Amino acid sequence: MFGAGQARAHTTAALADLSARCPLLITTQRGLAAARTITQDLALAALIDDAVMHVPRDHADKARSLAAESNADSIISVGGGSTVGLAKTVALTTGLPIVAVPTTYAGSEATAVWGITDKRTKNTGTDLRVLPKAVVYDPELVATLPRELATASALNALAHCIDSPWAPRADPINRAHALEGARLLRDGLDLLHDNETHAEEQLLAGCYLAALSFSSAGSGIHHKICHVLGGTFSLPHAQTHAVVLPHVLALNESAGAPAVARLAEVFQTDTASAGLADLYSRIEAPRHLSDLGFSHNDIPEACQRILSAAPPNNLAELTEDNLAELLHNAL
Amino acid sequence: MFGAGQARAHTTAALADLSARCPLLITTQRGLAAARTITQDLALAALIDDAVMHVPRDHADKARSLAAESNADSIISVGGGSTVGLAKTVALTTGLPIVAVPTTYAGSEATAVWGITDKRTKNTGTDLRVLPKAVVYDPELVATLPRELATASALNALAHCIDSPWAPRADPINRAHALEGARLLRDGLDLLHDNETHAEEQLLAGCYLAALSFSSAGSGIHHKICHVLGGTFSLPHAQTHAVVLPHVLALNESAGAPAVARLAEVFQTDTASAGLADLYSRIEAPRHLSDLGFSHNDIPEACQRILSAAPPNNLAELTEDNLAELLHNAL
Repeated sequence: MFGAGQARAHTTAALADLSARCPLLITTQRGLAAARTITQDLALAALIDDAVMHVPRDHADKARSLAAESNADSIISVGGGSTVGLAKTVALTTGLPIVAVPTTYAGSEATAVWGITDKRTKNTGTDLRVLPKAVVYDPELVATLPRELATASALNALAHCIDSPWAPRADPINRAHALEGARLLRDGLDLLHDNETHAEEQLLAGCYLAALSFSSAGSGIHHKICHVLGGTFSLPHAQTHAVVLPHVLALNESAGAPAVARLAEVFQTDTASAGLADLYSRIEAPRHLSDLGFSHNDIPEACQRILSAAPPNNLAELTEDNLAELLHNAL
Repeated sequence: MFGAGQARAHTTAALADLSARCPLLITTQRGLAAARTITQDLALAALIDDAVMHVPRDHADKARSLAAESNADSIISVGGGSTVGLAKTVALTTGLPIVAVPTTYAGSEATAVWGITDKRTKNTGTDLRVLPKAVVYDPELVATLPRELATASALNALAHCIDSPWAPRADPINRAHALEGARLLRDGLDLLHDNETHAEEQLLAGCYLAALSFSSAGSGIHHKICHVLGGTFSLPHAQTHAVVLPHVLALNESAGAPAVARLAEVFQTDTASAGLADLYSRIEAPRHLSDLGFSHNDIPEACQRILSAAPPNNLAELTEDNLAELLHNAL
């Protein structure tokens, strides 16, 4: 459901469509005020307002217990990837339907992918039970994101599009989603940076298509790298994606596949890397893993973990050397 | 399910997935030999081999009776739009699941739209019961289509893409399907005309995306015009779409909407009309409604029927005058 200023009405309607009456509300401190407004027509079974990145195991256990004890019959998440991520871990074991109200461009609300982080390792899986039954997109909710966060979040969405042509299940359908998603995100990022109206509408539509593409094509090497950096080294999700993306694109562009040439068309530049570089300059994108808590000493462990998680059919051959160089450049 | 030479294995597997054992097979005289090969591992409940265009009411009634009398638990259609169209009318009243094996680029296998023609009027509707539960795409099956028919059929698919930016429910998702579908069809049509391999794979992937787009965005004015020409004047479906398409595009391009400019990018020409004209020249597309059985005397009745069926929000304003001019030009 898509509409500016419609989050409350659409969320109420989505719950009614599911015949649900006692939702567990999951949000963050930042999202709490908006979440209370959006759910004011509803009787909440319980409230969790401390969702954090990468869904730590103890948070998942606590949320599952609370869902059971409170007799919740549904889950409403108001927040970004961390929030819907926690909702998904509850849905995974309880089967409760999720209504997702995104406040970032994470896109997790449109995928059946879940993740839990246990002792510095992020485990992910795919299960249709965790796919939200309804998504309520309201451009006014994301408009309150600070510019810097919005930029990183939209670049995380763009990474879903750019990582998809070399992902394990790339096909003409998810290519359609990836290319149109990339285009909307490119336009939306420029509009956002120029303080134009409708930036959020473009970005939300783009992040939805990006998520469909990612969900269908699967994780390419970019996502495997970022999962290691997030799960093992606790780097912030969106910013990490934003910093790593140009380096992965450059590596795979060197393999010269036609699928990558289509990305260049999105940017209307000779190469996709040139187009992405132009965009990064215009919008002042984050550039350095060193700003995010990663250090040179972390590279060897990261490379080993990435290699053991890497998809077998990446465009460019992956070695400890070229991964170390990639991380070094991203530092 | 998509695979060259896999139609028999995929159809058998699709029936097994549905736990179905007694399919009603619907095909045409032209498709009968292929249909027998594809279904040779299955025990048929009954066979219909005389599907014809536009699904006349008496054909629908006869097929529904046969399905009931033979205790069919499923329907397999092997053929183009006429064949799956007849299968859909049976599914509409019986709820039997359809496995569609397309032999043209009609795309009807990927939509929930059904149609029945009653006394020179084609009535259409949308019902999820008629959406096939599985589609078996096999490029080898469409490779046996005569070139002229394949061209008209692929242009009919292209019409789904081109009619979609101004259709009633156009949105960024069906735009993604329309633009990538148009691109695959453009490439596939050139490959087909140059006798290159993989033409059929490109065209089938394109016609699937085209059908998704049409199904989601709804009928634009192009489809309303062609339904009148087919239902009332019995013109052949694919060829009529092919002939009418450039004229509708020219009319709506004159309204200058950004959505139409995106079609020009697909053709990499200044205007979409110029790109479509180039393509029509290269592939020797059909050009004249007069070759298809339409005459000047039919224009007034056609215009009145089109005006009463036209979507309210077409880009260019529609009048009896400009519709008459359009049909005159298409003659």
